[in-house]
Amino acid sequence: MTDMEEQQDVPEPLPEPLVEVRLREYLAANDAEGLFDLLDPLALSEALREILQLTPDERDRLLTLIPAELAAELIEEAPSELAAELVERLELETAVEIIDELDSDVQADVIGEMDEEDAEAILAGMDAEDAADVRRLAAYAEDTAGALMIAEAFTFSETDTVGNVLRRMVSEDDDFERYRGQHPYVLNAANQPIGVVSLRGLLTAKRSHKLTEIMVEPMTVTADLPLDQLRDIFDAYPFLGVPVVESEGQLVGVVSRSAVDEAALERAESESLRMQGVMGEEVRSMPLFLRSRRRLAWLSANIVLNVIAASVISAYEETLAAVIAIAIFLPMVSDMSGCSGNQAVAVTMRELSLGLVRPVDALRVWLKEVSVGVINGLVLGLLIGVVAWIWKGNVFLGLVIGLALSFNTIIAVSIGGVVPLLLRRIGQDPAVASGPLLTTITDMAGFFLVLSLATLFMPLLV
Amino acid sequence: MTDMEEQQDVPEPLPEPLVEVRLREYLAANDAEGLFDLLDPLALSEALREILQLTPDERDRLLTLIPAELAAELIEEAPSELAAELVERLELETAVEIIDELDSDVQADVIGEMDEEDAEAILAGMDAEDAADVRRLAAYAEDTAGALMIAEAFTFSETDTVGNVLRRMVSEDDDFERYRGQHPYVLNAANQPIGVVSLRGLLTAKRSHKLTEIMVEPMTVTADLPLDQLRDIFDAYPFLGVPVVESEGQLVGVVSRSAVDEAALERAESESLRMQGVMGEEVRSMPLFLRSRRRLAWLSANIVLNVIAASVISAYEETLAAVIAIAIFLPMVSDMSGCSGNQAVAVTMRELSLGLVRPVDALRVWLKEVSVGVINGLVLGLLIGVVAWIWKGNVFLGLVIGLALSFNTIIAVSIGGVVPLLLRRIGQDPAVASGPLLTTITDMAGFFLVLSLATLFMPLLV
Repeated sequence: MTDMEEQQDVPEPLPEPLVEVRLREYLAANDAEGLFDLLDPLALSEALREILQLTPDERDRLLTLIPAELAAELIEEAPSELAAELVERLELETAVEIIDELDSDVQADVIGEMDEEDAEAILAGMDAEDAADVRRLAAYAEDTAGALMIAEAFTFSETDTVGNVLRRMVSEDDDFERYRGQHPYVLNAANQPIGVVSLRGLLTAKRSHKLTEIMVEPMTVTADLPLDQLRDIFDAYPFLGVPVVESEGQLVGVVSRSAVDEAALERAESESLRMQGVMGEEVRSMPLFLRSRRRLAWLSANIVLNVIAASVISAYEETLAAVIAIAIFLPMVSDMSGCSGNQAVAVTMRELSLGLVRPVDALRVWLKEVSVGVINGLVLGLLIGVVAWIWKGNVFLGLVIGLALSFNTIIAVSIGGVVPLLLRRIGQDPAVASGPLLTTITDMAGFFLVLSLATLFMPLLV
Repeated sequence: MTDMEEQQDVPEPLPEPLVEVRLREYLAANDAEGLFDLLDPLALSEALREILQLTPDERDRLLTLIPAELAAELIEEAPSELAAELVERLELETAVEIIDELDSDVQADVIGEMDEEDAEAILAGMDAEDAADVRRLAAYAEDTAGALMIAEAFTFSETDTVGNVLRRMVSEDDDFERYRGQHPYVLNAANQPIGVVSLRGLLTAKRSHKLTEIMVEPMTVTADLPLDQLRDIFDAYPFLGVPVVESEGQLVGVVSRSAVDEAALERAESESLRMQGVMGEEVRSMPLFLRSRRRLAWLSANIVLNVIAASVISAYEETLAAVIAIAIFLPMVSDMSGCSGNQAVAVTMRELSLGLVRPVDALRVWLKEVSVGVINGLVLGLLIGVVAWIWKGNVFLGLVIGLALSFNTIIAVSIGGVVPLLLRRIGQDPAVASGPLLTTITDMAGFFLVLSLATLFMPLLV
């Protein structure tokens, strides 16, 4: 249901190095038209990449010079946190102009990432009604229908006719994109959606027909419905959008299929980052100290866990002194077990996101993983055992290292599969905490197994 | 543009444990209707989860008993590899019936994951034209417009009128879902798309008007256009679908916004799995030995890399024997550096997927990461140095460990940021190879730094 008159072939971008040079030339000359002609044919991701190469001051000037519409497209292409950072630096008037061009859900995302002071200033500069929409959307919990919906709905009253709809579709063609393919919803006097009109209905009915004669009952979702359930709904039905209602049934917005798809992708990407210890939406154009501080926060917690694990080694210094070759294999056993455990973590995280496993299934997952752990533990233990035997010429050393890795693989794999479920159950973020927790456990168990087995076999090792 | 007469409120599912028990009851009684009534109100992800708890034989009987339409919805909800596994086990006739219900892009995905023999048997059982579509779609490279498109297009000829379109929209309501909100495309005699008709055009024109009078020039993409560029196009334009053409400009299908969004999500999830060493779309209902073998393939390569890294320790056995406390800190330095490096890998992987960085930007990324490495290296080195000093009561031990971790953090972070770019450049998968490569380098560097510094300071350490 969108206007297609701007359709064209995919434009050819300029050769790469030229863009950056020319951007700076046009900026130096305050040539707004030149900037537009340069950036407009680029894919948004390319244009954004080029802009991020500029200094912050250059970026500010660029976003101020180009038309607010193009600036808004670039802002929308950026992850919310980066988008907020780009807009916050601008003059208030320019910032408001750009924010005005965004859909209400993006407005809420971007303004939600700003300092309270900046956010308030921008909201005060916006149209009062739009600002109220943003405040309303920003109040909903992340990744719920309320937070993902747009406030703009294509609505009609019980007394409207087919002709009213057709006239609005023809006249509001600019606003139409904002509705993202919504069907017309019919609201009663209490603002509750009581019907939805299909395209077929519109095309076959007479213009004088009332919408109430051809509408069907709409599916609705409540504003607190979480992302996973929204995905289930859009998987099961071919709708492009579903109206969102508050507890009393009043319409508050419309959540679109594409907003749900995008939120699922963002969640997956942010989860992948958190699993590697990166909090927030870090991109390299962000200030150095912010990036550094965020990464350190996670690393510092990790250092404490590492010290705890290492204390196990400390308890066996005598054994180590007697069989120094053990020190070669300690990091190997701990690293290999960590890898095996992380594979199990990854599979559980994916099954969680597909809805194929729930926290209550922990025991079932544990049993499934133990089997994999036993097989892989045997194979890896045998491999490393033979390596140790041949390398150091002592079959008992091979036995100690091999046995330790075998047992520790079983521990790592079975714990790795279950850890994300237990963390989710106690309300912790499995993406952040699974890795460090697993690694600490498998490090401790690995060090203990190698060193206690070595103590046991001591006379045979020296 | 979809039929909405089945709209309804989100149904309430049954209490959890009941579903599994009842599924088995109905299966035992061959009660197809009972199965349908039980599964139909569930979200597809829940229904799939319940089915995966059954034994393979029970699953086969269930998928055979329920209507092919519901079975197809469940198959579509499953990742392609699992979907192929579920369908392959069925009687040929049932398998064909279920595959027939799927859209052509999903057919190609699922059949593409099957053994060649099973795939051929199913294709032979299908309608010849549909089978040809599947073969055609399956021939395109993964994550290109050709592989993501559906073969079904809503097309008209140059002589068709507005009335022709309206009549087909009204009569083909069942097929209509398959078009996923496509606009009508006008083809010339050579099967090239020469126009697209907007909804506004349809609603305002007379029925007798020729489509050629109201159509606008369509944007088209070639079948080999990769996913990232498709995302750029759908980011920049509000279209729900774009026609896909072959080199001569003939229409071969239509790629929809939702297919592109889903492919992007699947790619992100599969990348996240590969980064943790899980190849393929593992879910726990897959055969044990398949899961075990796939995980082992990655782990075995890793064990070799670990041995290479450990050989550095082996070269310094004398130093270790003299200062046994060093052995406590070796795994700590290697683990912490690995974590720091993986953070940088994760940020680069994300910037790659957002299109904010390209392989040629390696130097720029390296410079950005060195700064983070220096700050975090100083902080972490200081922390671990103080810990080592206090723990072992030797300030020089603290100095050795602290210096080693500082330098190794700088190495890990700067290499971590660049490794995915270099791997991409030489055509390797950065998700699979970045972690092991980085860990091996940082392990070797870490061991070397700790042990060579310890050798240097030896007189002060004992």
